[in-house]
Amino acid sequence: MTVLILTCEEDVTADMVVAQLHKRGVPLVRFDPGDLPGEGALSAEYVRGEFRGYLSTGGRVVSMDGLRSIWVRRPGEPAAHAAEPSAWLSAESGQALYGMLDCTTARWMNERAAAARARLKPWQLRVAHRSGFPVPATVITTYPRVARQFADQYRHVVVKVISGKPPGDPPMALPTTLVPPGTDFAEVAAGPTLLQRYIAKRADIRLTAVGDEIFAARKAAEPGQVDGRFGDTGHSWQPVEAPPTVARAVARYLRLAGLAYGAFDFAEDAEGTWWFLECNQGGQFGFVELDTGQPIADAVAGWLGAPGEPL
Amino acid sequence: MTVLILTCEEDVTADMVVAQLHKRGVPLVRFDPGDLPGEGALSAEYVRGEFRGYLSTGGRVVSMDGLRSIWVRRPGEPAAHAAEPSAWLSAESGQALYGMLDCTTARWMNERAAAARARLKPWQLRVAHRSGFPVPATVITTYPRVARQFADQYRHVVVKVISGKPPGDPPMALPTTLVPPGTDFAEVAAGPTLLQRYIAKRADIRLTAVGDEIFAARKAAEPGQVDGRFGDTGHSWQPVEAPPTVARAVARYLRLAGLAYGAFDFAEDAEGTWWFLECNQGGQFGFVELDTGQPIADAVAGWLGAPGEPL
Repeated sequence: MTVLILTCEEDVTADMVVAQLHKRGVPLVRFDPGDLPGEGALSAEYVRGEFRGYLSTGGRVVSMDGLRSIWVRRPGEPAAHAAEPSAWLSAESGQALYGMLDCTTARWMNERAAAARARLKPWQLRVAHRSGFPVPATVITTYPRVARQFADQYRHVVVKVISGKPPGDPPMALPTTLVPPGTDFAEVAAGPTLLQRYIAKRADIRLTAVGDEIFAARKAAEPGQVDGRFGDTGHSWQPVEAPPTVARAVARYLRLAGLAYGAFDFAEDAEGTWWFLECNQGGQFGFVELDTGQPIADAVAGWLGAPGEPL
Repeated sequence: MTVLILTCEEDVTADMVVAQLHKRGVPLVRFDPGDLPGEGALSAEYVRGEFRGYLSTGGRVVSMDGLRSIWVRRPGEPAAHAAEPSAWLSAESGQALYGMLDCTTARWMNERAAAARARLKPWQLRVAHRSGFPVPATVITTYPRVARQFADQYRHVVVKVISGKPPGDPPMALPTTLVPPGTDFAEVAAGPTLLQRYIAKRADIRLTAVGDEIFAARKAAEPGQVDGRFGDTGHSWQPVEAPPTVARAVARYLRLAGLAYGAFDFAEDAEGTWWFLECNQGGQFGFVELDTGQPIADAVAGWLGAPGEPL
């Protein structure tokens, strides 16, 4: 039984997991949807109630009934490397590939529909509440008046992007930013704006959940630092034990969201409370593993390589 | 409790359902995501474990806890009508809107994740098999050799698009087409190709399923006619009783796919067998209702307006 890894060619995080799968002797195929059609090929047959499918790349063939699990790591756009790429060819190739993969009983990390919903920030906040995490008060609005009231009420608020990085080449990074006093909120009417109560944090927490296993890491913050992703503070990630209430909330979150993997970001305040900021269902873990030595790639390999029935 | 209809302005099918909801006295709001931000506005607040959200358009406000159901009819691209539209603004607006709607307990016709998967043709064929429909032998392949063998084996085969209409303005229609003898299949390597055994049909069947209700209609086909969507044969849609085995398979299909609505296309052969061709989770029904007088819009209104718990 084979593990299928959907990712593009240059992906160091995937390399780390591939190395662990090799160590465990688990067969794997690495496939970039961007190579279909071309270097990658597929066939699916539906005859008299039977389904047979296979995928091939670089001379290797994997049968759909031989698939153990599928890791959606960082797949390229289908047909991106085709001789004559087009939106239409990408649509046809994507439907053929993912439609065929959805016919299998392989376990997914993460299931695509669950992943799509888990990317919605407003939904994350609701699921975080339900899971039992403390969540900083948040508003998402197109009403300048609502934004102004929120900022007045909480005094120190940050503004964040809702959907992730704006498109662009290279992608533009929009750090989470403190809203200065006296801000004019008229522009809120031009696009939905996410404001959140600012948590004065003494550390950033990154918690990586892989199935039932969790790996928490902590990085001390400079006073007044807002977005831990930007600016070098000289601190590095250190392993830390997750409080049992947090561990339980993480398990609930993954169950409610239908996820096998999630990278959680928290802000640790002066009392030691971990405030939920977000859960990235496809978040990186390489940088944490390099700093902390936590065996995250091995846990991913363990999950992907596990025998057993679909979840 | 209010019904939310997500659709663009010119949508006659939505008008038919709106008329039925009015008759039933069910409150409704019609909202085009393309109007957000601008004519449409929203706010979602997450404070101390509580979620409060509302949506407004044309001076009407609907609260998220007052939502009974959501009909995803033909929603515009979020922010399409914004003063300065961009892919980034569409992403932010879409995440804000759908993320907020996903926080509610409203029933969806259809649930978005289920709808996305139900659009995948290869997955449809597998679910149709599992539901008990007869399905014409089909192959989806990028291998010229496989395509050629399939065509040789079944003699009369048709070629179909996988993902629906190619993009374009106006969208280009690609009718299902018989593959002539002696076809050169070399081009199959350039894009996944769907070939299906040709069913010599005596009629097209369109079956519209709305929750537990099904409405089947039949239109006689001319001998040798391949794609019933194109060309006027002079025949019109007539109501027809679905055989009990078909009705059971429809119910299983909707359950497996997690759909509340589906428009099924079948080919009726000389023996009277209904061969599954496809299920369009967002398929039109206005043209069938006009020909047959079947109360489909009223059934949709009934489903949307029904009280009761989320499914």
